[in-house]
Order: sequence, then C-alpha cells, then structure tokens
Amino acid sequence: MRIAELEPGKEFDSVLLVARKELRQGGRAGFFLDLTLCDATGRVPAKVWENASALSERFEAGDVVRVAGVAETYRNALQLRLERIEVVSPEEAEPSEFLPRTKKDLGVLESRLAEVGKSIQNTHLRELVLGLFRDPGFRKRFRTAPGAKDLHHAYVGGLLEHTVEVAELCERVAEVFPELDRDLLMAAAILHDIGKTEELSWETAFEYTDQGQLLGHLILGERVVRERADQVEGFPEDLKLRLSHTILSHHGTGEFGSPKVPMTAEAIALHHAEDLGAKINMFLGHMAAARDQGRRWTERHWALKRSLYVGGAEEEAAEEESGED
Amino acid sequence: MRIAELEPGKEFDSVLLVARKELRQGGRAGFFLDLTLCDATGRVPAKVWENASALSERFEAGDVVRVAGVAETYRNALQLRLERIEVVSPEEAEPSEFLPRTKKDLGVLESRLAEVGKSIQNTHLRELVLGLFRDPGFRKRFRTAPGAKDLHHAYVGGLLEHTVEVAELCERVAEVFPELDRDLLMAAAILHDIGKTEELSWETAFEYTDQGQLLGHLILGERVVRERADQVEGFPEDLKLRLSHTILSHHGTGEFGSPKVPMTAEAIALHHAEDLGAKINMFLGHMAAARDQGRRWTERHWALKRSLYVGGAEEEAAEEESGED
Amino acid sequence: MRIAELEPGKEFDSVLLVARKELRQGGRAGFFLDLTLCDATGRVPAKVWENASALSERFEAGDVVRVAGVAETYRNALQLRLERIEVVSPEEAEPSEFLPRTKKDLGVLESRLAEVGKSIQNTHLRELVLGLFRDPGFRKRFRTAPGAKDLHHAYVGGLLEHTVEVAELCERVAEVFPELDRDLLMAAAILHDIGKTEELSWETAFEYTDQGQLLGHLILGERVVRERADQVEGFPEDLKLRLSHTILSHHGTGEFGSPKVPMTAEAIALHHAEDLGAKINMFLGHMAAARDQGRRWTERHWALKRSLYVGGAEEEAAEEESGED
Amino acid sequence: MRIAELEPGKEFDSVLLVARKELRQGGRAGFFLDLTLCDATGRVPAKVWENASALSERFEAGDVVRVAGVAETYRNALQLRLERIEVVSPEEAEPSEFLPRTKKDLGVLESRLAEVGKSIQNTHLRELVLGLFRDPGFRKRFRTAPGAKDLHHAYVGGLLEHTVEVAELCERVAEVFPELDRDLLMAAAILHDIGKTEELSWETAFEYTDQGQLLGHLILGERVVRERADQVEGFPEDLKLRLSHTILSHHGTGEFGSPKVPMTAEAIALHHAEDLGAKINMFLGHMAAARDQGRRWTERHWALKRSLYVGGAEEEAAEEESGED
Amino acid sequence: MRIAELEPGKEFDSVLLVARKELRQGGRAGFFLDLTLCDATGRVPAKVWENASALSERFEAGDVVRVAGVAETYRNALQLRLERIEVVSPEEAEPSEFLPRTKKDLGVLESRLAEVGKSIQNTHLRELVLGLFRDPGFRKRFRTAPGAKDLHHAYVGGLLEHTVEVAELCERVAEVFPELDRDLLMAAAILHDIGKTEELSWETAFEYTDQGQLLGHLILGERVVRERADQVEGFPEDLKLRLSHTILSHHGTGEFGSPKVPMTAEAIALHHAEDLGAKINMFLGHMAAARDQGRRWTERHWALKRSLYVGGAEEEAAEEESGED
Amino acid sequence: MRIAELEPGKEFDSVLLVARKELRQGGRAGFFLDLTLCDATGRVPAKVWENASALSERFEAGDVVRVAGVAETYRNALQLRLERIEVVSPEEAEPSEFLPRTKKDLGVLESRLAEVGKSIQNTHLRELVLGLFRDPGFRKRFRTAPGAKDLHHAYVGGLLEHTVEVAELCERVAEVFPELDRDLLMAAAILHDIGKTEELSWETAFEYTDQGQLLGHLILGERVVRERADQVEGFPEDLKLRLSHTILSHHGTGEFGSPKVPMTAEAIALHHAEDLGAKINMFLGHMAAARDQGRRWTERHWALKRSLYVGGAEEEAAEEESGED
Repeated sequence: MRIAELEPGKEFDSVLLVARKELRQGGRAGFFLDLTLCDATGRVPAKVWENASALSERFEAGDVVRVAGVAETYRNALQLRLERIEVVSPEEAEPSEFLPRTKKDLGVLESRLAEVGKSIQNTHLRELVLGLFRDPGFRKRFRTAPGAKDLHHAYVGGLLEHTVEVAELCERVAEVFPELDRDLLMAAAILHDIGKTEELSWETAFEYTDQGQLLGHLILGERVVRERADQVEGFPEDLKLRLSHTILSHHGTGEFGSPKVPMTAEAIALHHAEDLGAKINMFLGHMAAARDQGRRWTERHWALKRSLYVGGAEEEAAEEESGED
Repeated sequence: MRIAELEPGKEFDSVLLVARKELRQGGRAGFFLDLTLCDATGRVPAKVWENASALSERFEAGDVVRVAGVAETYRNALQLRLERIEVVSPEEAEPSEFLPRTKKDLGVLESRLAEVGKSIQNTHLRELVLGLFRDPGFRKRFRTAPGAKDLHHAYVGGLLEHTVEVAELCERVAEVFPELDRDLLMAAAILHDIGKTEELSWETAFEYTDQGQLLGHLILGERVVRERADQVEGFPEDLKLRLSHTILSHHGTGEFGSPKVPMTAEAIALHHAEDLGAKINMFLGHMAAARDQGRRWTERHWALKRSLYVGGAEEEAAEEESGED
Repeated sequence: MRIAELEPGKEFDSVLLVARKELRQGGRAGFFLDLTLCDATGRVPAKVWENASALSERFEAGDVVRVAGVAETYRNALQLRLERIEVVSPEEAEPSEFLPRTKKDLGVLESRLAEVGKSIQNTHLRELVLGLFRDPGFRKRFRTAPGAKDLHHAYVGGLLEHTVEVAELCERVAEVFPELDRDLLMAAAILHDIGKTEELSWETAFEYTDQGQLLGHLILGERVVRERADQVEGFPEDLKLRLSHTILSHHGTGEFGSPKVPMTAEAIALHHAEDLGAKINMFLGHMAAARDQGRRWTERHWALKRSLYVGGAEEEAAEEESGED
Repeated sequence: MRIAELEPGKEFDSVLLVARKELRQGGRAGFFLDLTLCDATGRVPAKVWENASALSERFEAGDVVRVAGVAETYRNALQLRLERIEVVSPEEAEPSEFLPRTKKDLGVLESRLAEVGKSIQNTHLRELVLGLFRDPGFRKRFRTAPGAKDLHHAYVGGLLEHTVEVAELCERVAEVFPELDRDLLMAAAILHDIGKTEELSWETAFEYTDQGQLLGHLILGERVVRERADQVEGFPEDLKLRLSHTILSHHGTGEFGSPKVPMTAEAIALHHAEDLGAKINMFLGHMAAARDQGRRWTERHWALKRSLYVGGAEEEAAEEESGED
Repeated sequence: MRIAELEPGKEFDSVLLVARKELRQGGRAGFFLDLTLCDATGRVPAKVWENASALSERFEAGDVVRVAGVAETYRNALQLRLERIEVVSPEEAEPSEFLPRTKKDLGVLESRLAEVGKSIQNTHLRELVLGLFRDPGFRKRFRTAPGAKDLHHAYVGGLLEHTVEVAELCERVAEVFPELDRDLLMAAAILHDIGKTEELSWETAFEYTDQGQLLGHLILGERVVRERADQVEGFPEDLKLRLSHTILSHHGTGEFGSPKVPMTAEAIALHHAEDLGAKINMFLGHMAAARDQGRRWTERHWALKRSLYVGGAEEEAAEEESGED
Repeated sequence: MRIAELEPGKEFDSVLLVARKELRQGGRAGFFLDLTLCDATGRVPAKVWENASALSERFEAGDVVRVAGVAETYRNALQLRLERIEVVSPEEAEPSEFLPRTKKDLGVLESRLAEVGKSIQNTHLRELVLGLFRDPGFRKRFRTAPGAKDLHHAYVGGLLEHTVEVAELCERVAEVFPELDRDLLMAAAILHDIGKTEELSWETAFEYTDQGQLLGHLILGERVVRERADQVEGFPEDLKLRLSHTILSHHGTGEFGSPKVPMTAEAIALHHAEDLGAKINMFLGHMAAARDQGRRWTERHWALKRSLYVGGAEEEAAEEESGED
C-alpha cells in the first residue's frame, strides 16, 4: 500500500524508505522512535512506541523497511503507529525509487528537451548540447536528478522538469525579443543547471555532495560545458566565453552565488526566465500542500519568508459561476 | 531634416524640440548656450556661441524651434553649431511629436493587446478590461504614454509596447504552468502599468506628475482598476482582491515600491514576467547605443550599475562562419 | 475568577477564551491538551491530562469555555491543571470581551480625540475627520480595534489609544515647528491608521483579514480617506494629494511597507511621531512583563532584536534616596 | 551691504567671508577666480575675471575680504562680478561673524534651556546639568556651536536651537508616557549633543576637528558627562550607566555610529525625538531654499536621497479660500 | 571523575558545576530535571527522573554539586542519569574552576605578552602598557577572563590567549609593512580587548555585566586606556587620539559596534589581524567538536551561518601517503 | 627627464606614455587637449593649447610620445604646458615600461616566493606550485602583472609584491595556529591570485580583458590550478577540492565575488590574510599621496568610502622626542 493510499483508522502493510530517524525520550517506555517515512507518492510521520531502543539499532535513515500497523490522525494529519518494522535489503528494493518523483512523464520531458536542442542552428552549440546528451552516464544522472535539495523541484526528475520549463519560457522570450541570440539562449537554458548532477546526490535522500557544498553547481556545470566546448572543433572563443558567462551569472547576483552579474542580454534573459520558473514551482508546490489540508493561507515559507494566499471554496465556486454566464 | 539624417560637415535647417537648455560661462563671448535637441528619430547636443545671453531669453526647454547651422563632430559624436534659432508656435508644431517614439507600429500593438483581452474567459475580468479600453480618453493616453521617465521603454508608445511584451510572456507562462489562473494573469498583465498614464506627463518631455511622484503608478493604477471593477455587476469580491493585490505587488518588494510582496502564484508570475520584459529592454537599448558607436563594452549603466558586453565584428564574423559549416 | 486573580495552589472556576489549542503526544495517557486561555486581564497556559483526545473534539480555539481545576506553578509561572472544561455558547459570552484590553478609559480617549478633531481650522479637513467619526459603524470598529496583531498596542482599544498618543505628540511638534501645516498634520495623525479597522479582525483573536494581508492598512486606509474627501464639497485636489501621501508614506520606507517615502514636512513629522509612539509602547509593554517577573533584563524581543534593561530594586531604591537629599 | 540686501544689476561694496576659493582655467585671460562668499545672511557665488592668478596669492578661504563690483544674474540666481578685492585683517573682522547664524534669539533659547534644566527633580542629574552650564568656557562654545557640519542646523547657534527643540519634544513625550523617568529623559535631551562642541570647529568655517573625525561627538560627549557625574557626590552608579547609555545610543543603530542600540525606554524616546527634530529641520530648510526660487519641487537632497514637494501658489490660494467658507 | 574521563555504561561520582537547569514535563513521574553539567574538561547533559520537583528547589544553575549515577549513550552522545545530587558549598569548591578553560599554560602566555610589551620603544606607550599590567587587580582579571560569552575563545584564559595571538600576528604585520608605526600597533594589540574584563563576568558562568551590555567593551576599554594615558607624564595628545581611535574602531564597522571605521593604517591593521585571530579560533573550535563525533561536516554555526567541512579518515590517510612518496 | 624630476617653472624634454587624451571645448582657440602623461615614476596632467584639433588626430591614449614645453603649477600641483608633441614608434619604446611600477626589486620578490614554494612538504602541492613557475610564459606574466586595475597594488609587479606579502603573513598564521594545514595554506597563498594574469592586461594601460570582466580572476585562476593538479600524478581528489575551494572563496562573500563562503580553516585564514594585505596597501598608498602634498587628511577614498588621517609635522616631532627620553 503506497502512502497516497493510506487511510486513517485502517491497517497497512507497506514498503517504505526511512527519511528521518530519531530516538526520543518520552512515552510510557521512556523512549520512542520518531520517524519520517516516504515513497514516491509522499511522506508520512510514524511512531514506534514499543521496544524503541532495541529496534533503533537495526536500521538507519536511508534504509528501505517493511512496516505494518495502524494509520491514525494527529493534528488533522495522518500518522502511522508502527507495530512491526524490518529492513529490506538493497537488492530487493532500490532506495531512490521511494523518493518523491515528478508527476510528469520523464520520457515526454526528454523528447521535449531533445526537440529544443535540435532547434539550435549554430553548429557548435548544437554539437555541444547534443553530444553531451549522447553520453549515457550523463543522461542517466540528468534524467533522475532532483532540481534542488529542498527549495524547488525537489523530487526525482525535478532537474529535467525544471530545465524543460525554462527552455520553453526562453523560446517565447526569443520570439518576443528577436534581437536576442536565440541559439545561445536555448543552449544556455538547456545547460544552465547541469552542475546539479554533481552538486547533489539522491541515492537514499537529497543531499549535497562535498564538491556540491564547496564549489556549487555553477562552477561544476561551467567546468563541464567548457571541457565539452574545447572538444568541439572550431568552437569560437568568444562564444565559449559568452556561454560560460551565461551559466556562471544565472543566479543574478553575488548574494545568490553568481561570481559575476549578467552582462549580456542572453544572460539577463536566462537569469529572469530561470527565476520565474523556479519561483512559480515553489509557489504552486507550497500552495498545493495547504489546499490539500483545506487551509486558506499556507504556513510561512522558510525561504520565501511569507505565507501564500490559497483562498477557499466559496470564492472559487462564485468565480466559476460568474465565469460561465 | 530629421536628426537621424544629419551628417557631420553638412549644413542643416531643421525643426526640433528643446529637451534641455543651459546658459553656461565660457567661450569667447563669456557665455554660450548648451542645448539638447530632439525629434522622434533621436537626440543631439547643440551649441550657440554668439549672442547667447540675449537668445536665452527667447525660448525655454519644451519649446519647438527652427534651427540652422553646421553639424560637427566632437569626441566621435555629432554636435550642432547653431547659427540661427527661432521659436515655432505650438499651433504649428505639437511638441510631443518630437519626443522619442517606439519603432513599432502602434496600431499593430493595439490589435495585439485587444486580441489578448478578448481571450479572457472570465466575464467579469473581460468586461473590466474591454470596458476600460472602450474609454476613448484612457485609450488615447495609454497608446502614447512612455513606459518610464528614463529607465526602460522611455519613449512615446513605450507603455503599450511594454504591456504587449509582458502579456505575450504571460501567455507562455500560463501554458507552461496550467495550474495558474490564466484569466487573472492575463488581465493583470494588461492592467499592471495603467497607472503610468497618470504618473507621467509627456507633453514636452517625460516628467513625473505631482501625484506620480507622491503616490506612484501602483497606487494610481490600482485605484482605477478598483473603481472599474466596482462598476462591473457581480464582480466577485475575492477576485477584486486578487487583482488589486497582483497590481500592487508587481514590483516584487518594498524596496522597489510595492506595499506588499506577491502572495499568490499569479502575482509572482506577473512580477517576474514584468521584470524580465523591462530588463531585456534596458539591456538591448543600452547595447544598441554602444554598438552604434563601435564599442565592445557599453558605458556603465547608472541603474544596472554595470557595463554590458557588446563584443565586436571579428567574433561575430567568426561565429557566423563557423555556424555555416 | 479572572486570570489576574488566580493564585498558585488554589482551586478556580472561571470563564475564559481559548486562545490556542494543541493536542500533543506525551503524559501518562499518551496525549494531553496544551492550551492558552485568556480574558481581558491576561493570558495563562493550561493543561488537560485526562481524556484529552475526546475532549479535543468538543471545542476549538476561539471558543469561550467554563473551566475548573487547580492553579500550579511551573518554571516560576502560573499554569492551570484543568479538571473540567465545557463550552459556553456565544449567546452567553461574547468572545471579544475576553481579549486583552487597554487599561485606559475608552470614553476619555474618544473625547480627547474629538477635541483634537475640532481644533482643526481648515473646514475641508475638519469636515472629513468629523464626518468619518459620525459614522456609527466606523466609530464602533475604531473604538475597539487593536493597534496591531502582536507588535504594539496589541489589545482591544489599542488603535484608539495609539491614535490619541500620536495626535498628542503631533500637537507639540506643530508648536515647536510652526512652519508646519498644523491642520494637515493633525488630520493625518487622526486618520493615519484607520485602515487597521479593515486590516485586522478581533472577534475571537487578533488576526489579519484576507484584505489586510494582501493589501495592508496603508492602502485600505488611504482608500477610505480618499472616498470621504471626494464627498466633501470643494475639497482642494492638492490637499487630497498631500493627505493621501501622508498616510501612504507614514511607515517611512519601502522596507516597512510604504510605497513612497515621505516627501513633505508633515509626512516626515507624522512618520517619526508615529514611530516614536509605537516604539515606546513596545518598550514599556515588554519591560512591564519582565518587571512583573522580577528580572533585570527582558527576554530578547523578537521584533526589536534585543533585550531591554529593566534594572533592579537596589538601584531604584538607591536612586530615590539620592534623589531626595 | 549684506548679502540679503544685494540686488541684480546694482553695484555693491561689502565685507564678506571667503567660504571657497578656486583658481580655474577659462575666461578670456586664461584663468579666473571662482569664489563663494558668505555672511550671516547668506551665501553667494562670485567671479574675478581679471588678474586672477596674481590676486589668488593674496588671500585664502577663511579670510574676510572687502569686495566691490556688480551683482549679476546667472541661471536665475545672483552672482557677483568682483572688480576689487582686498583682505581685512582679523583684528578688524571676526570671521565667525560671517557664518550663517540661527534666526532665533540665542538669549531666549538659553533661558528656555535653563528652565528645562531647573525642572529636573533628581538632585544628581540637576546638579550635573546646571554645573556644566555654569562653566563659562563650555557655555560659550555651546551657545555658538553649529548643530552639524552640513546636515541639519548647520549654522552658528544651531546646536543650542536643536537642543531646545529636542528638549521641548521630550517634555511632551514625558507627559504622554508618564511611565518614563522624566528627569533622566530631560537631562539626556539637554546633554545628548554636547560632544559637538569638541567635534566641530567654527572659527572660519564649519569643520570637523581631528578628534571629531576620529572619535565622534557621541564618545566625546559621553566622556564629559561621565567626568562631570563622577564629580557630583553620591551620583548613583546605575544612573550614570543609564545616562551614558542614553547618550551613546541616541543615533539608534551602529550604522549611524551608535556603539549600542537603545535598550531602555528613555534611550529609545530620546533617539526618536532627536531624529524627529533633526529631520524636520532638514526638510524645512531644504524646502525654504526651493520656495525662495519659486520651485514646486526641491532639488534632490544628497542625504535624504529624495526631492521634496513644495507645491505652488495656485494650490495654496485655493486651499486658503476653501478653508474660509 | 572529570567529564573527559566518563565512559558510557560506567558508574560515576563527580563534582561538577550546574550550567543549566530546567524542570520539564514528561517522564513517568510527570516531571524530570534536565541539566547541563560542566567542569574544566567539558560539558555533558544530565537527567534526574525521580523526585524532580522536590530536588529542583535545592539548587540553582551556578551551584557546584556532587552527583552520582550511570553514564548512558543517547543519540550517539554521552548523557548522565543522576541518582544522587547534593550541593557543595562555595567554600569547598570555587565555581569558576569548573568552567571551560584554555588548554594553554597561562604563565607561558603571560610571559609572551610581557615580552611583546617590553619590545615597545616609545616610552609613553611602553609605560602605559607595562603600568597597566603592574596593577595586580587588573592583571588577575585579565589573566582569567574569557575572550567572549560564546563566540570565540569562550573559556577561562581565552582573553589572554586571544590577545597573545593577535599580538603575534601584528608582529609579522609590522615586519611585512615597515611603514606602520610598530609601537602604536603593538600597544593597541595588547590593549584592544581589555574592556572585556569589565564587559563580562565569569564567576559561575560567562555572562555580560550590565555595563557590558549597555556600553560594551570598546567604550569600557578606551575609557581605561584614556585614563591611564592621562596619568603618563608628557603623553602626546595626538598619540592618545590615535590609540583611542585604534581601540574604538577595531570592530571595523558600525554594524559590529565600532562608532568609527578605521582611519589610520595601524587601525585597519589591528582590525584585520584581530578578525583573523578570532575567526580562525571559531573555525578550529567548531571543527574540533565535529571531528570528535566523526562527522564530515559540522552543524551549521549560528554566527558564521554555515557548516564547515571537516572531511574524513579516508582522504586524510590518502593524503598522508601521497605526501610521503 | 622623468616625471619625478620635473620642476615647476623649468623647461623639459621627455618621453612619456599618454594615459588619457581628451579634446575639450575651451581656451582661446576654441579647443584644447587635456592629457594625462605617465612614466614609471609617476603621472602628471598636461595641456596643449595651440592647434589641438589637428594634433589630436596624430596620437591616441596608449601611445608613447616625446613632449617638450614648460612645467607650471596649477592648484598646488604640477601641470605641463606642451609646446611640442610627437609619437615615438613602438619599436623605440615599450609602452609598458612607462606604467607605474613597484618600488621593490622583482628578483628579490621572486626569490622570496620560490623559497616559500620550496618549504611546502606535501609533494603534490609542491609539484603543482613549482611546476607552474617553471612555465616561462606564466612566470613572465606573473612577474609583471599589476595587482589590480586601480584598487591596491595597481602597478607593474604589484601582483608579485602582493603575493609575497600574503605568503609572508600566512607563514606567521601557520605558526600561531599549528592546527592549520600549513602546506595547503602556503600553496593557496601563492596561487590565490594567479587568475589576474588573465583577468588584466597591462600593455599600454591597466585594463580588464573580456574574460576578466565576464568571468573574473577567481574562476580563471581556479581553472588553471585545477588543470595543473590533474596533471600531477596521484594528486588526491580531496586535496584538489580543498585547494579549489580555498581559491574560489578567498573574497569571503558573494558580495565580493566569491561563489562560496570559506568553509575550511585554511580558506578563512587565506581570506583574512589576503584582505589584510590588500587593505594595508590601499591605506599606505593613499596616505603617501596626501603626505606628499602636506595634508593632514587624505581626500575621500572612493572604495574605502572615508578620508584617512595622516596627521602633521608637529605631532610627529613631538612624538619622536617623547619616544627618546
């Protein structure tokens, strides 16, 4: 039974990933286990009240476990009371399959991106982009990487989804502003976040790698792009420079980690298109969670530093009606 | 002869608007007149070396004048040496026709915007938008207003041009993120800057009105939208609130004059789409000026606080070639 | 028995408002209810250890309840152990009467404000101010509204109290600086925060309304003032503009929500007088709480980002003595 | 003839202070002298066109000079064309008498301040304040010191004028908030800026002293207050501490030079009252200059970073009329 | 048994200082005591599960207690379960001896500092420095003071250790930049933080004094230095000014509490050398704690606002090997 | 005759570099040439009053010219009146030899740096550093590069001088804090700014290259270091990562261009040591200029945003005397 299918008051028997594990003081037995479990359909808190100290030594966060017990409601939200828990060996279950996952079809997204890549007219840029995606190792990592550790598109496939969104926005930007170098903008849109495949790891959880933390995806991504461009014969130096600059400056300011601010029209276009895509994803994700709980306002978002307005059933109904007449 | 047609070393006889007038100390006669003249095709500095004090009393900035003299080169740029200058009466020449003007066709832009307005499905929003544009006084001001005093789209018709660009970007945003309320987003895109018709004046120059300076276009625009919405029968209160919020928050933060930060998905979408459109216009305009002068880097932009990279003939040639093989 | 009268170790039987309700895990029974109760004399934490899950479904935050039990001491502060709890119907008890309330007399404050209003010489401003307070609906809301959700004057009647303080400070400001337009300053002082009657709700707790959160009291207040001014015959446009500007800019900078910074002498005067009144209220309130607990320093104040110095009995005694000789 | 009495087109013969002197390239003779001259009634630009190099060696900025010539108009403002210039010896003319000077009566201001000092009930604070003003050297410097180099109250007597204004505002603050320690607040109001008598020099111009620049008036003033308090027998230590803290923190934040933020109610009260007084002085002074020139908006103020709205004759007339009916 | 000697699973009987005491709700008995105990070798959490309410009244944070019980492991860290606890009278045990303490030898540090003092050639500065350290009261406080409440060098002897480090860095700075006034720099290095002996108290915990909080160590230290300099005959005024400025500006900016930014070469040198010494101490201390727990990354540091990279056994081993060939 | 040897009132005949050239309006002939000329000993303003328009076409900024005329004084500073000017061909004179140049001996600095490099014990780091300096092309650029365009060490040889200073400071840092990895710190100190050899050009002036402006020396330097490390056999990956991080983070924060803040002890050490070295150089250079002009305070420094205190002859004399007794 997957998490999205659990119901309060019902028994369950599921295979889930342990996302967080804490042995805490409290409960009748002195100690209890406080867990967060997840699969591709969601996350749920869980408690083990009996025999917690001993059980705690048998598994760790990142393990896949088979659990059984009863689903309860606590503060209007689902919580599992575990009566049995046992580790499933990595051979039987791939932890990464239990992580949150884009709701979109990865194959469709990949085709969409390939299409964009092929629309690039400049042969050097096209060869750079297509060549990179011919590399099976890269392609595999790119297709499953999350878009971030916990900010936006923080789910398996999120990087690909985000990249397609940014590329689609840039297509329109290039139409509205024909003075832009469309080829450079589209290549940069596709490549801007490839450093995330090295910045993050997502085997059993979304984490930063050491080099991700110490260097960051801008540096790691630009390094790959530079090396690839050096291998494409006759790639103009000025174009390499513009491409490197576009990737390194796409966070917009030093405050957000870009060593240089955007100084070309394509760089400013990518920065804003990327920010637009990321921010709307953050808003929609945060609002969906609140809407599921029937709230008119979301909780305060730690990074956005604000609550978001969801509104309620009455208004929406009223609005729909008025939209029909 | 229009400014774009003047050539160094040639005589001229033109009708131009005085954009700036200063009586300065210097020259052989003790005083000279230092002017900036403009028409719809551009701006040019001009000097009057003889009889400056007396001439200075005959006209003011904002007057249209007939001037004759010789075009010279000074520091690689055109400069006029005026030998004759006389005021043209307002009946003969409308000053606003001498201000810089969008290169796009106003009629085409208006049709494009009307199309977007008609694509709104929600009857209240559609009626609000279309009703406003049926008001001939508003429509006339909206069609000629500049987009800003001197930052982006600072030319007659700039507000309309900017509004169309933002609306077109938002169309794509609504496609990429179907969770957004397209009708609200498109209505807000069309209405977001209408307060500029009251914030600015552009009879003889681009200036702030008193209420523009003291209240600003966000407040002035929201006031109009609110009054219009109150006149549309059955306009849902929640929708009025969302629309007002979207307009008031579209500058993103208090630092840029929004009394509230965006708290709905449509508000964040409009903010970023608007910023993207405005910034690219600033970049392209600033780079065009430098490219005309054959410079590889622009001068430092006072608001962007950076120079922009234009690059040069060699690279572009090289790039095009390499793009062909 | 009111909260201010409760004593540790004594039994009680009181009617109180539930300000906060949480069902938490812990205690012998697995769950307990963690409450904050309040009436006009103060707030007190309370616990229900028995039968918490079931009781939890019978009432919500915002309900008035009759409770009985024993008052205890926990970490040097009073805490109630509830043994009985039952809901009181809204007919029997008006929730808003249990909210914290100014210690000052509302009637006296109202008279004081009316006096200030009548001292305005300019007939348009006087008519605007007095007309607004003749509206019984507005007057009722204005008289009971809190000054803020939780920052300063956060109690029933706080808005009126704050308004009187600011008006009294402005009277002196106008004396010290006779160049100021006293009428404009006094009208603005009276009207500056009237938007809070729409920004906040205080039926069962101090909360933001949707429009309060999305538009804010500056916008809501200026809208009312503008509409009222439009109804006063012959109200000069320039005076409307100055009044709107004074209200919209009274938070001083965009960072604090003003879409424009103060640009007239009256606007800067109101901003600083208002800030002075609000800050002293925050300081005095925060220090009073600490003084009651016998502490020399307050806890760190979340918004002021500092602890405040209260000092202690020794010094005060010493000081008084030394002040007498 | 004093500067306020000069008229365009008329000859003059005046004794003035040289506030600024620059030998510049230009004019028919290759060089000219560009001066700013001042006396207690104002400042005026002046030019010497003949024999500038030689004349330049005969006097310096800070000298008093007798000048004769013709008053002209340049860019709508008065400018002197000097035909004769000769130095006046310091014995004949005290430079400081030519500096700008408060329009108020210094004797009246001093009496007002003495009154406030005597109203202090606490004997230690009263003795400290009155003792300081019994020191004739201090009193003389305090009575003539400017309030700042060029920000607010930048004229002889400005410190005294500012101090009286702040003290008068604090009197009302203490009435509105009776919880405040009135004696401490009034003493601090009187003493808060006494360090300016050591921070600034105003013999021939308003300048910083070395210690003013390197230590600042907060440190210099607190040092004097501390030493004085140490000499008052029995002055309570806690009161010394509160007084020192109030003076050191009165700029409000580290950004404005206070080593500590205000942490007592009296300190926050003084900070805001002082800021209010200083800001209104800045506004009124800046607006007066623009009003004299018939402008609706002031020039941008370098420290306030904004233009101020003065408005014009029409509105004022309209306002007065409407105020009469 | 000292804290560094405790082992999980073993019984203990130790004399320790109570650094923190909280009576909390939970556990089988309804309440338990949650303590932090410390001695010069470290800190450890402890719990009392039985009879907590009654025991809680017998001692306070800051008391020295004799405790016995069993050491356990909780979340990979040591935790004590106390079975007996009794207060030790202050006569028997000096609380300050149980506070964390520098690992360096205080005598060696003092000799090192004396050496630096004697190397000063300027007689006034040397006399000022050496005279201060001849004062036994000052010397005693200086030798044991912590370097800060909880940021860097937060242990007994930390001030002395930090001062020696800064002085040693400044010795090299003066070598590399011989243009600097070595004597002034070395004197300022020795004296820069002496105000901490009055800003902090460390009898039973590291706390701010009232004057430490309200005035700060920059003000307190400069006051002492100034008084001492006034007592040294013939001490040049300009040198006093430079020394005061160096001390007051050594935090670099107003944001960090300096009323003036550094304006001499010696002041900027001291500021940066001091910052360097303090920051490296913070890094090394924070990393040591993580290394002890076998972590590759530290927890996020509250003041540095980042995690630090420790790295792991593998890399170090690899590195050492590779370093050998 | 070199610039340092010119004297007011004397004729000269010199070979100098044109650092700046402007054709300006003014003077008797309508136009004059306003130049800045320089050689390795300094910079001097110069004017050409006759035949300026024609002469202006014969040379450009960056050319070496032979000039003759008379040295004059203008506003207390030297200025040249040119009577003859002719271009010197690049074969005859190397422009870069006329740029400002370190006063130190380049050979001595290089030996010092080589010594530091050889003191590195870790074979991989030593090989990386020494290998780089064996590359004659790199070594030549490194030895002559300026340290910056115009901030600190802005003279030929400035990069080498700055690098030696930072390395010497780091030697002491490693002594004071033996927990640091001395080898990593010393290697990073030597390599931290090598990207400046690609960021800047100094053929005829100090300028940014395109890649310098668009990518910056942090990115360019890390790229070189990374490539070199990849070529050293067996270079541990973790060490590469730490070295890259140290270089990229050495500006301390994103605001100053580092994509990551320092997260290791060596990185924070290098950042502060580098900042210390750069700031003292800025202070000393700016103060020397003012001291040469006999000023007690420097002009406001554009980047430091402050004036610096130089002080005067009296104090220094007094100080020296008092230092002798």
